[in-house]
This record gives sequence, C-alpha cells and structure tokens, in this order.
Amino acid sequence: MERRTVFFVSDQTGVTAETMGHSLLTQFDGQAFRQVTLPFISTLDKAEEAVRRINATAENEGVRPVIFSTLVQEDLREIIKLANGLFLDFFDAFLGPLELELKVKSSRAQGKAHGMQDLGAYTLRINATNFALANDDGAVAHDYDRADLILVGVSRSGKTPTCLYMALQYGIFAGNYPFADEEFESGRLPQSLIRYEKKLYGLTIAPERLQQIRNERKPNSRYASPAQVEYELRAAEGLFKRYGIPYINTTECSIEEIASRILDKTGVERRLRP
Amino acid sequence: MERRTVFFVSDQTGVTAETMGHSLLTQFDGQAFRQVTLPFISTLDKAEEAVRRINATAENEGVRPVIFSTLVQEDLREIIKLANGLFLDFFDAFLGPLELELKVKSSRAQGKAHGMQDLGAYTLRINATNFALANDDGAVAHDYDRADLILVGVSRSGKTPTCLYMALQYGIFAGNYPFADEEFESGRLPQSLIRYEKKLYGLTIAPERLQQIRNERKPNSRYASPAQVEYELRAAEGLFKRYGIPYINTTECSIEEIASRILDKTGVERRLRP
Repeated sequence: MERRTVFFVSDQTGVTAETMGHSLLTQFDGQAFRQVTLPFISTLDKAEEAVRRINATAENEGVRPVIFSTLVQEDLREIIKLANGLFLDFFDAFLGPLELELKVKSSRAQGKAHGMQDLGAYTLRINATNFALANDDGAVAHDYDRADLILVGVSRSGKTPTCLYMALQYGIFAGNYPFADEEFESGRLPQSLIRYEKKLYGLTIAPERLQQIRNERKPNSRYASPAQVEYELRAAEGLFKRYGIPYINTTECSIEEIASRILDKTGVERRLRP
Repeated sequence: MERRTVFFVSDQTGVTAETMGHSLLTQFDGQAFRQVTLPFISTLDKAEEAVRRINATAENEGVRPVIFSTLVQEDLREIIKLANGLFLDFFDAFLGPLELELKVKSSRAQGKAHGMQDLGAYTLRINATNFALANDDGAVAHDYDRADLILVGVSRSGKTPTCLYMALQYGIFAGNYPFADEEFESGRLPQSLIRYEKKLYGLTIAPERLQQIRNERKPNSRYASPAQVEYELRAAEGLFKRYGIPYINTTECSIEEIASRILDKTGVERRLRP
C-alpha cells in the first residue's frame, strides 16, 4: 500500500489544521498516512524551510504529500503553494466568500485563533479546569452551587475525562460524583446531590466494556468481575430512572461525543468556543 | 453594529465545524456573532429541522446567517445548502480535490472523525488523562518512568491544564512537579527528578500576570505578593539555567500554544491526532 505523508502547516499551533485534516483523512479508509505538524510558520524564512522539507519528502517517497494549511497571511500561503504537494488551505477557501458576505475585509492577522488576546478566556478555562479537579470523584469539599453540570455514574464510566474536556474545550464547570455501595444499597441519592438534581447527568456503559476497562486497571479483581459490574450498572440505571436523571450510554462514544451530546440535550451553554 | 448568527452544523459533535468557524471569525474584528451549534444532524429529518431553524433566524434578524458545516453525506449537504444563509462546508470544499489526488473514492461515512471506531485511541486518552492526574503536582506516587514529559515551574504557571490538554488532545503522558521552598532554597532539583532530567520542560510567566492569577485564588496573601512571586520566578529560572532545562514563557500563550510549542521544541511525538 502506498503511504502518503500529510503535513499540517500553520502560523499558529496547527490544531485547526490537524482537526480539519484528520476529519478528511478518516474518510479514506485503508490508506496509510504519516502525519507531520509544522506549527508556527509565521515568517517567510520559516515558510521556505517548510517548502524544502515538503519537497524533500516528495522526492524521498516518490509521491507528493498532502498539505493541510491554515495560513492567514497571503504571502506565506503563496510560498507554501509552490511546494510539491496537494495544497489545501482553509483560509484560502473560505476567507473570500466570508468577506463578500460580511462586506468587510478580514484583518488577516496571525495568531488570532489560539492566541492570548483574551485573558478572560484563558482564566475561564483554567478556573473551569480547577473546578473539575476540585469537584472530581465526589470530593468532600465540593462546590455544586457553581456547577453547570454534575456527572454521575459508576466508577470508570467516563466522568472525569468528560468533565476535564468540557472545562478545557468549553469553559464549562462540571463536577462529578461516582455512585458506590452506599447508593447501590439504598437506591437513593446522597443528600449532597438531591438539592442539585436538575444539574445531574448520568453516564452508563456496556458491562463488557466496563469489565475490560476495569480489568486493565485492576486485573482479576472483584471490582472488574462480571457480577460486580452488572450489579453496579443495574443499580446506577435504577437510580437514573428513579430520579428522572437523563443519561447517556458511553460505550460507543468518544469523549468529544459524550460532551457534545450532553450539552445538546441539556442546553447548557458553552462559555467558550474552541 | 449588525449582529450575525453563525451556525455550526455537523453530523457529529460539531467540534471540527466550531474550530474551523472560530478560526475564520476571529479574522473579523469588531463584528458581533451569535454562535449556535447544531450537532448530530445525521438524518434527512434533522437536516430539514436545521434548515427551518436557520431560515427562522434569517427572517427574525433580517440578515442571513453564516453556516459552517461538516457534513460528510452529500444528500444532507444538499438540504442544508438550501437554507437561507452563506453555506461553507468543509467536506464540500476539500473532499473532491483529495479524492482526485489519492485516486480513491472516500467512504463518505458519518461519524469517523470523533467516533468510537478506535477503542485503542479512547483507552489511550483515558490512560493519558489518568496519568496526568496521578502525576499532578509532584504526587508522591509518581511514575516518571512512563512519562513522555514532566513539566516544572512555580505554582500557577500553567502546568496542570497543559498536562491535561496534552493528554486529552494528543494522548501524551505528561506529569508535573511544582517548584517550592525546598528547590528555591537549595537551588537544586529533588532526587526524584534528577534521573529524568531529559524529560523536564520548564514553564515561566511574567510576575505581574502570576500575581494577578494568584491574587484571584488567594487575595492579598503572601503567596500572591510581588516580592514572593518575583523571588519564586527568579529561583525557578535559575534552576532551569543551572540544569539546562528548556523553558517557555507562558504569559502570552493559550494552553494550545504552550502545548504545541513544547511538542515542537522537544520532538515528543503526538500519540493521537485530534
């Protein structure tokens, strides 16, 4: 099978180019791609160096690379365009139509998308991340008053990474509370949560998958046993139903997808955009 | 000032559409945009519902919305295209040229970009996140053998969010160790870190900014005082220089940017792509 090199070229971090390129590449099953990020290509010198690197790859591999780029400045784009590769630039494609529509020239300024022009946004993400950490795993010193959401479910159903992702990506304040023996046995929510019933969202997961995840962490433990896993999941779903807590099955979901689905269902507003 | 509504329409989470749209919108300073995400538009019915929503917005606001979309299926795109708005679809723009270049038809399958086709990737992100949490803040039970990177610096220089971002975004195993009195006074790294010198990367930050961040957390404390902040930062930079630890000033950087710059400088490989 032919292997292509794909370059993500950006005057900034390359995150947008990577996201865009990755979405497109996943549409080509069975193709092998080597992925290289060239971030911070913000001067003519660096752009020329990038072109040399792309051209050397084309020569070595006998097939020209694919270049996903997000270069705001036209002069830099013009240089990268000359490289021996398929050039797909995202500002090139969309900035023109947008300018026409908005009837205004864009600023064509680098470093806007992920720069620090907005200290407030930075602080919000940090605060949301700290909130998620301080309100993780049913922390004693929780602060559910400030929470946008509180995720509940059994251990290893995906609560913590989802909370952290929501914090970093969207500035959302999400805490989480793991159901454990006390809840399973009583079939009741703890007092600390009942006041916040409207903020609760449940995560559940297929028993086989949970066994697998838990077994990786504590091999051959009771914690990872089929009987325990099934008992806990049944009890957790019982709680969700008893209290009318909406819930999502995370078995087939990525973290992004769990987060997006919860925001979509609850209507909790993103405080930040990526 | 005219306010436009911008829709992010996706058959998946909308993260790619948001990222793409946000990059473009930041090029239009001084314009006000209301941003609405319509994720999981994966059926003809949902697409028609989205069109009704977009058209109602156009009617109410007297100006047609901008639509950033990432719809893999052509039939869904064809429906959204009929909405009263500027339609910018990213598969529409790039899938054709890519198919020509790769000489293969794309699968045009939904849910590839952030789906769960790859359980290994999910597990890797979760493990990397757990690693970041278990190796946060100089944890006693650290596991630096498995670390790709260990971030060092004073309290509140950005270590924890950067580690978590690297874990969630790239599956990188990053721990962190905060410098404190012991290191400031001795001017030496602790034994636990010396073995791992090659994995260390320093964060520093402008004193004014650090004061501001600490003051938000502990107002009027010694911890947030100009003298203490300056003392700590000088001592930390002394350590970086003494041990030849590369470091970055995070004052003007977003979390994405800190992460990208560190990966760029160290050559640590991304284990995952967004």
